[in-house]
Amino acid sequence: MDQWWINGRASRHVDVSDRGFTYADGLFETVAIRAGTPRFLDLHLDRLLTGCGRLSIAAPTRARLAADLKATVRDIPHGVLKVFVTRGPGPRGYALPDSPTTTVAWGTGESRAQPSLPIEIRWCETMTSANPATAGLKSLGRLEQVLARAEWQQPEIAEGLMLSTEGQLVGGTASNVFLVTGDRLLTPVVHRAGIAGVMRRVVVEAAMGAGIPFLETQLSPADVRNATEVFVTNALTGIRPVRQLGAQNWGTGPITRHLCGLLFAAGVGECAGQS
Amino acid sequence: MDQWWINGRASRHVDVSDRGFTYADGLFETVAIRAGTPRFLDLHLDRLLTGCGRLSIAAPTRARLAADLKATVRDIPHGVLKVFVTRGPGPRGYALPDSPTTTVAWGTGESRAQPSLPIEIRWCETMTSANPATAGLKSLGRLEQVLARAEWQQPEIAEGLMLSTEGQLVGGTASNVFLVTGDRLLTPVVHRAGIAGVMRRVVVEAAMGAGIPFLETQLSPADVRNATEVFVTNALTGIRPVRQLGAQNWGTGPITRHLCGLLFAAGVGECAGQS
Repeated sequence: MDQWWINGRASRHVDVSDRGFTYADGLFETVAIRAGTPRFLDLHLDRLLTGCGRLSIAAPTRARLAADLKATVRDIPHGVLKVFVTRGPGPRGYALPDSPTTTVAWGTGESRAQPSLPIEIRWCETMTSANPATAGLKSLGRLEQVLARAEWQQPEIAEGLMLSTEGQLVGGTASNVFLVTGDRLLTPVVHRAGIAGVMRRVVVEAAMGAGIPFLETQLSPADVRNATEVFVTNALTGIRPVRQLGAQNWGTGPITRHLCGLLFAAGVGECAGQS
Repeated sequence: MDQWWINGRASRHVDVSDRGFTYADGLFETVAIRAGTPRFLDLHLDRLLTGCGRLSIAAPTRARLAADLKATVRDIPHGVLKVFVTRGPGPRGYALPDSPTTTVAWGTGESRAQPSLPIEIRWCETMTSANPATAGLKSLGRLEQVLARAEWQQPEIAEGLMLSTEGQLVGGTASNVFLVTGDRLLTPVVHRAGIAGVMRRVVVEAAMGAGIPFLETQLSPADVRNATEVFVTNALTGIRPVRQLGAQNWGTGPITRHLCGLLFAAGVGECAGQS
């Protein structure tokens, strides 16, 4: 990231007593910048402000935040916007501060446009916690994902799949996962573990709009083995078809190609070439 | 907290790209300052550096950190020292930075000495995640404890007990819990959930030294109901006997009093008056 703003001012300094730092008491969003615009900003703000509600963090004003973020990325042709909202500085102890002042921080970085090609993935041994209190949220506590991502260094492995401590398929370290089985699109529920990804939502809405049979459900490692198509999604890369997982190989199947085409039409340029 | 040091310099500024802030990729310690000394510093450093090992964070030099912390608190008669170790600043993404530079931060605050009197506690609805990858660690991701502590505002309730998502007793939001059943001292294992508290370790070592039968095991809410003595521990308050939980009442029983006496003798002054 190249530039940062904290509570509207150009700065890189977070107060050491900020509960985002001391307790991971906050949320974040990772937004693709495309042609000077924060892509799917409304969906990101939906999730961010819903998350504030679930955590009882005083949410920033949506219209004001949206305007600020749009202004920030106006001159960036292609890149990444990260947005943080925390409960703000506070005294020691888990109890909520009497008068918390929400911290809103964001940063931008430029990146190079590249199509999302089929990837090789692996299984991670590190599991994701299952907890309905925080499931679905993109909260700041991501140590499990850090440990999972640290399991491999090979550059040819693009992502690792994680199971929950309850043995269910959750998704990639930094992505949601979709399977196709018997012409039906499947993705793990995020009621007990995982993150309700914005690109996941875009894919689900595209699938439902196109009449592709879709089910959000509990899935297991066996479901991955039995799938005829596998792909992962995140806000920065759209759909990435999975071509290899261990000894198993997949082509980019018809439903994946169909969805890539729909996403490309919806502005997800990195899905070019898959449809 | 009154004063802060970041990487050895007086400062309150954490870089916004610090992985402690962005991913809760770090650890902390809360240390009691008594008579110008960080109490049980060796035990805190044991846990902190063991945690660094588990997370593959380059640990600060123990002797140097100990000397710095001792010098910092020299003139504080009674208070709190918080120590943070994070993987340091890094680029976007969960992958470990190529050359991470550990952040070491600490802060001090003065407080008033007070004896730890018997307390009233409650049950929390928010559960603690079970995950062997992070169990026992005092990692920065404490959102579950924040949500649990936010369940009550009544000042007469001093602590809340949490269960794991697997239904086991874990401890208080900011404490470990001990039960006495049939003259045996029990405390939850911390292999799947919970924190391996420093005062927990002090109590366990005192109990074993005194020949009090002790077992670290899986415990349930029913075990709490059936206990003849209940107390909670943390680094700042030593042993706090539990006198009330819902409709149930306990006196301060003989094993709790015995342990309070042993802890008082070991320098835990707040256990005065319980033995």
